[in-house]
Amino acid sequence: MGTAEETPGEEQPWGEVSPDAARRLLVAAVEAFAERGYHATTTRDIAGRAGMSPAALYIHYKTKEELLHRISRIGHDKALTILRTAADGDGGPAERLAAAVRSFVGWHAAHHMTARVVQYELDALGEEHRTEIVALRRKSDEAVRDIINDGVRTGQFDVPDVPGTTLAVLSLCIDVARWFNAAGHRTPDEVGALYADLVLRMVGSEPRK
Amino acid sequence: MGTAEETPGEEQPWGEVSPDAARRLLVAAVEAFAERGYHATTTRDIAGRAGMSPAALYIHYKTKEELLHRISRIGHDKALTILRTAADGDGGPAERLAAAVRSFVGWHAAHHMTARVVQYELDALGEEHRTEIVALRRKSDEAVRDIINDGVRTGQFDVPDVPGTTLAVLSLCIDVARWFNAAGHRTPDEVGALYADLVLRMVGSEPRK
Repeated sequence: MGTAEETPGEEQPWGEVSPDAARRLLVAAVEAFAERGYHATTTRDIAGRAGMSPAALYIHYKTKEELLHRISRIGHDKALTILRTAADGDGGPAERLAAAVRSFVGWHAAHHMTARVVQYELDALGEEHRTEIVALRRKSDEAVRDIINDGVRTGQFDVPDVPGTTLAVLSLCIDVARWFNAAGHRTPDEVGALYADLVLRMVGSEPRK
Repeated sequence: MGTAEETPGEEQPWGEVSPDAARRLLVAAVEAFAERGYHATTTRDIAGRAGMSPAALYIHYKTKEELLHRISRIGHDKALTILRTAADGDGGPAERLAAAVRSFVGWHAAHHMTARVVQYELDALGEEHRTEIVALRRKSDEAVRDIINDGVRTGQFDVPDVPGTTLAVLSLCIDVARWFNAAGHRTPDEVGALYADLVLRMVGSEPRK
């Protein structure tokens, strides 16, 4: 996952976006969407925040929706990589589930502004883009469900409702993006450790270490 | 809690708001804020949705923020009543915690549009109103923490981090408002029952029934 997840409180560097002007516009869009919401933000606002003209913005992004899609796509790709890496990692189901929760929570805490845009503005995506993003979200669900199913199969987990528990685990982690800023006395790592323990309890993991 | 919580998928009737015109404006504001966000909504939009003129709106609400505050206040009052009723109810800590989760989840599922406005637009409240709402949220936290502390005291719960677990329990319930609409194949009651079981596991409730 690189260093972004390990830098609490700092927005992700968007290293995959180039050139520099396109990256600066993306960062400005994240800030504006997070503060005022997608619908209240104009491309003029975004260009202004990035210290650029609206005409310069259009060189890189044809529409405001294209900016949102780019942010959402990068965010969802990261989420899926985090969860898939944990699911396919070494160790038993309990270790892999704890690792998934720790890194997923860490990302939502450290990048809560990006995460809010990614999680709350799905309805603003165009039809085609929304379909693409929903497919990525299904794969993220699958990664967590795979770990839980492994634990049920080996008898280490006791989970009467696997899809419902998968949903609850992801939901618990995602909501960190909503409250994280306000409750500033816990670090992303501390929240990740607490949540990993709570999630192992949710799946009835035995023995608890 | 009245009947509102028992009517899945239906927005709350706002029976406490009168006269009828003021109530219709509030319902219109909830819809507009939930769809487009607070900052993208004008008082003209809200009046239009309610089939009224902007001038008629100003008879009841002086500003858009007054509408948001009214919605937020009513929503937070309901949340606190739900949680306090469960905390002060009959039965042991496990029964009371399960009751709190079932009714809090039920409200967030059945009234997910209102709940989203209440939960996501806190930053848009004016200073004084935000202070008032934050105080109500603290009391809601307290209600859940009281139940968990009771369970720890009687030895029925095993909770190493009471404030962190309280936060997680509330967060899990609140995030239902984000995903509920999309995952339409579970009723609010079904989600409530699933979550009550998961939360009892989170607090290490023994024996599990």
